[in-house]
Amino acid sequence: MEAGAPYLAEDGREHKGSWKELFASEAPLYLEIGSGKGRFIAGLAEKHPECSFIACEGGYHIYPRILQKAAAQELSNLRVLPEYIYDPCDFFEDGELDGIYLNFSDPWPKDKHGGRRLTYRAKLEAYRRIIKKGGFIAFKTDNDMLFDFTLGELEAVGMEPERFTRDLHASEWAEENIMTEYEEKFSQTGKSINYLRVIV
Amino acid sequence: MEAGAPYLAEDGREHKGSWKELFASEAPLYLEIGSGKGRFIAGLAEKHPECSFIACEGGYHIYPRILQKAAAQELSNLRVLPEYIYDPCDFFEDGELDGIYLNFSDPWPKDKHGGRRLTYRAKLEAYRRIIKKGGFIAFKTDNDMLFDFTLGELEAVGMEPERFTRDLHASEWAEENIMTEYEEKFSQTGKSINYLRVIV
Repeated sequence: MEAGAPYLAEDGREHKGSWKELFASEAPLYLEIGSGKGRFIAGLAEKHPECSFIACEGGYHIYPRILQKAAAQELSNLRVLPEYIYDPCDFFEDGELDGIYLNFSDPWPKDKHGGRRLTYRAKLEAYRRIIKKGGFIAFKTDNDMLFDFTLGELEAVGMEPERFTRDLHASEWAEENIMTEYEEKFSQTGKSINYLRVIV
Repeated sequence: MEAGAPYLAEDGREHKGSWKELFASEAPLYLEIGSGKGRFIAGLAEKHPECSFIACEGGYHIYPRILQKAAAQELSNLRVLPEYIYDPCDFFEDGELDGIYLNFSDPWPKDKHGGRRLTYRAKLEAYRRIIKKGGFIAFKTDNDMLFDFTLGELEAVGMEPERFTRDLHASEWAEENIMTEYEEKFSQTGKSINYLRVIV
């Protein structure tokens, strides 16, 4: 944990509008919401040293695992935001991000919890504000219900997928795909992974 | 996951006042709030087949691990409540429980988040309602700040620890202690574990 401390971005709200200063870099800036143990975002940060990455994960017993990875791999282009984000606009200025990744988000299967889903229309609208024009929202999930819900919400806010597949691992984007912990375990069951990307 | 389905208690609010019917048993009923992967509660359920246990864990990628354990160990006296509980009184009737376990709860280190801590005074008062007289709240944590905070909150609501130690693993309660995943990993660092129990 001590080794990971430099990678922790506590008081995330205070970095609103000035995240790039944390990295001392004008490199493109990407956010993952719900990073779990960080396999995906650490893999991405390693693969793309020319970009900066923020891993958002509120789980108190979980986000230290991202810090460990960041320290072990010396990922100077990665920071961990230890929060459950409700309103992304609390943490990011309009146009501050180049892209957002949502991976295997909680499907909140009950209808009455639809508003908690990370691809609910109000969330999508918030993402659109904090991502600069030409940036993207990328989303993958094994949950077909959540994927269909997301397609409906995108339509409701007038956004259209630029990339779309019901079987990511068999698609043209399989090669560049970095698996999450869950995805790797889960893909052994044979269930296909849905994936889409929207340009903002 | 399929094997674990019989152990899932969805729609937890609907079981309010009738949890014992789920177990078809009048056995004493214990709740753990924040069960993680369930090592503690599954161990307890295995050790005490004469009691019933509810493992509460909202993490979408985490609670299935408890279901797996329940299925693998055939723990007919364990159910998983897949929720983040804000108000325990939404889920349990007054006096419905015999005890509550809180293990390594999120310390929410910022003062302004004190109200989110599971041992905040309003939470303690809620626990007191849903636990029958003579039942208990048991709490362990490696976080000294959270432990001290808890002592203050207990005092504020007029509750006094019946058990208390700053070093659980060296105490008279070490033998009966069942370690959580985190506790086992963490205890290798040498930091002592705080523990207390309050009779309601």
